[in-house]
Amino acid sequence: MADVSENVITLRWADGQIVMIDQRILPMTVSYVSADSADSVARAITDMVIRGAPAIGCAAAYGIALEALRLQNESKEQFEQGMRVAFEVLAKSRPTAVNLFWALDRMQAALQSIDSTDQKKVAEYLLDQAHLILADDVRINQRLGAYGAALLKSGDRVMTHCNAGALATAGYGTALGVIRAAVSEGKNISVIVNETRPFLQGARLTAWEMVQENIPATLITDNMAGFMMQAGEVDAVVVGADRVSANGDVANKIGTYMIAVLAKRHNIPFYVACPISTIDLSLEKGSDIEIEERSADEVRGFRENHWAAEGVAIRNPSFDVTPAELVTGLITEKGVVSSDDLKRGALGQFVRG
Amino acid sequence: MADVSENVITLRWADGQIVMIDQRILPMTVSYVSADSADSVARAITDMVIRGAPAIGCAAAYGIALEALRLQNESKEQFEQGMRVAFEVLAKSRPTAVNLFWALDRMQAALQSIDSTDQKKVAEYLLDQAHLILADDVRINQRLGAYGAALLKSGDRVMTHCNAGALATAGYGTALGVIRAAVSEGKNISVIVNETRPFLQGARLTAWEMVQENIPATLITDNMAGFMMQAGEVDAVVVGADRVSANGDVANKIGTYMIAVLAKRHNIPFYVACPISTIDLSLEKGSDIEIEERSADEVRGFRENHWAAEGVAIRNPSFDVTPAELVTGLITEKGVVSSDDLKRGALGQFVRG
Repeated sequence: MADVSENVITLRWADGQIVMIDQRILPMTVSYVSADSADSVARAITDMVIRGAPAIGCAAAYGIALEALRLQNESKEQFEQGMRVAFEVLAKSRPTAVNLFWALDRMQAALQSIDSTDQKKVAEYLLDQAHLILADDVRINQRLGAYGAALLKSGDRVMTHCNAGALATAGYGTALGVIRAAVSEGKNISVIVNETRPFLQGARLTAWEMVQENIPATLITDNMAGFMMQAGEVDAVVVGADRVSANGDVANKIGTYMIAVLAKRHNIPFYVACPISTIDLSLEKGSDIEIEERSADEVRGFRENHWAAEGVAIRNPSFDVTPAELVTGLITEKGVVSSDDLKRGALGQFVRG
Repeated sequence: MADVSENVITLRWADGQIVMIDQRILPMTVSYVSADSADSVARAITDMVIRGAPAIGCAAAYGIALEALRLQNESKEQFEQGMRVAFEVLAKSRPTAVNLFWALDRMQAALQSIDSTDQKKVAEYLLDQAHLILADDVRINQRLGAYGAALLKSGDRVMTHCNAGALATAGYGTALGVIRAAVSEGKNISVIVNETRPFLQGARLTAWEMVQENIPATLITDNMAGFMMQAGEVDAVVVGADRVSANGDVANKIGTYMIAVLAKRHNIPFYVACPISTIDLSLEKGSDIEIEERSADEVRGFRENHWAAEGVAIRNPSFDVTPAELVTGLITEKGVVSSDDLKRGALGQFVRG
């Protein structure tokens, strides 16, 4: 099984800080942003220095640990008050990906479980927990990658949207983890990368990861997805997820729904690769998932280069919801939930079982 | 009926040249490119200084007239040879839009019809023909606009793709002509503008035209089209066309097919507005239409700003084909061809009748 690429390190702990590769400017510039508090981690998440549901979860866990380390010498009252604020600030950083809340819940449980008045010890314990979440994430991705790889055959041309790769996780990736695993099994896989406006995660991040890994990849604009399917040049679609509701509806990067509709029309299997932590059984259906609307400036152009006509109104929903009926299979670290399983409402049982 | 907007002049004859607004850099910069030969007109078409099927047709007609004017004092042999080359060069400028070939055929017929050995007279006659094609185009757009407007009701939120506006024609527009006509009838229409990667005709040109005309418009990225339909925020789709085959299949800007598939799923009417000259009865079906693939650099970024990872392969088909079964109606200057008419193969009869 291929290991985490050493060329693609999303976030790492160094010198008492969490160091994140700056995904706003990749691949033009490879630079890093360091954070040493819950506040600075939250800002990095909101500003999309770091993005991708599992990566956001990891970063948030470190945000909690960093805050505990920062406050370890304060009074008990100040420490507790500071930690409460840290959880709140991080929970508000982005609304859609559930992994963020999952990681914060796990850190909250860790904080409550440790029976110590020694704040230094508490902080170290929380840091250990964050390290554990990070290490777990890589293992989970590798495991789901192996399950997913079994669904692909040599020669497959796999379309993916956004970046559900090493950069969206602690390493390896979910959708791209499936592709990495298939390639490391010796399968001949090529990837069709949708550029993914407005933030261009496909053109910038997924294309870059594929080039780093020497996996053949072809970049298209999002509106070419239908053309490629019509031309018979797509054998499967594999995407990640930001949140999956109990009925199997999938919130993922804007445009995912459109690709799922096209895949259905062309009888192309549409797979969603995500860790169990992305499944939110507390929400019945996809329409219950909060969809983040981001700044109009993202749509106006790319970074400082604005091309849209002045005076036009702009919408910028960052995610959409793909109904479960369009999902061929949900690839998790516990195995694949089939379309039939989803239809008979067996997702909850699968997650709990 | 609203007249051609004076703010949006795509091409005009001035001082013995054809002057075209440079659509590569609108709306950031409003500047003009002049052409005084078939060659320079062909380059303007290839480079997309001017684009949009009807506008390309008009420009090509002027290209022929310009060449005749340029060669009017040459020997008969040189004049005839030069005109042959002019037709060839212009025919090669872009392959997909049929209006180009339609206009060249019309100019060829004019050239052959004029019974004169006076080359100056021939050149002047060709220039008159080009003026006529330009004037006709505006009238045709206004007529099809009126037919299309009858299909929209006040309050409709109309999605459009690319730019089938004044900038794509001699003025007024096809898809945007329908919207202009509906608005001028007093209907309250708002427009959802797909940005239309890679050349961004929606964000740059359609949004600009709508702002000029004070028609409420909302810009989205192409991959948000499904979200907007799912949210119930789209009442109709109106797009233009580059070529329609005899069975009613529609070649139009890349991404049109995807929107048609989504519209079908959401039971949203999908209209194609185009002059009769866009219908190519010589081709049986959409798959017979040649689809232009343009430079990879367009997908790599926008103009000099490249963001795609280096080393990734790139595809850039400029058009796709929407099967007739997804078209609710074809709006022409002779009336609306319904989906039922298309199904029973009545398009040829309609065009000829």
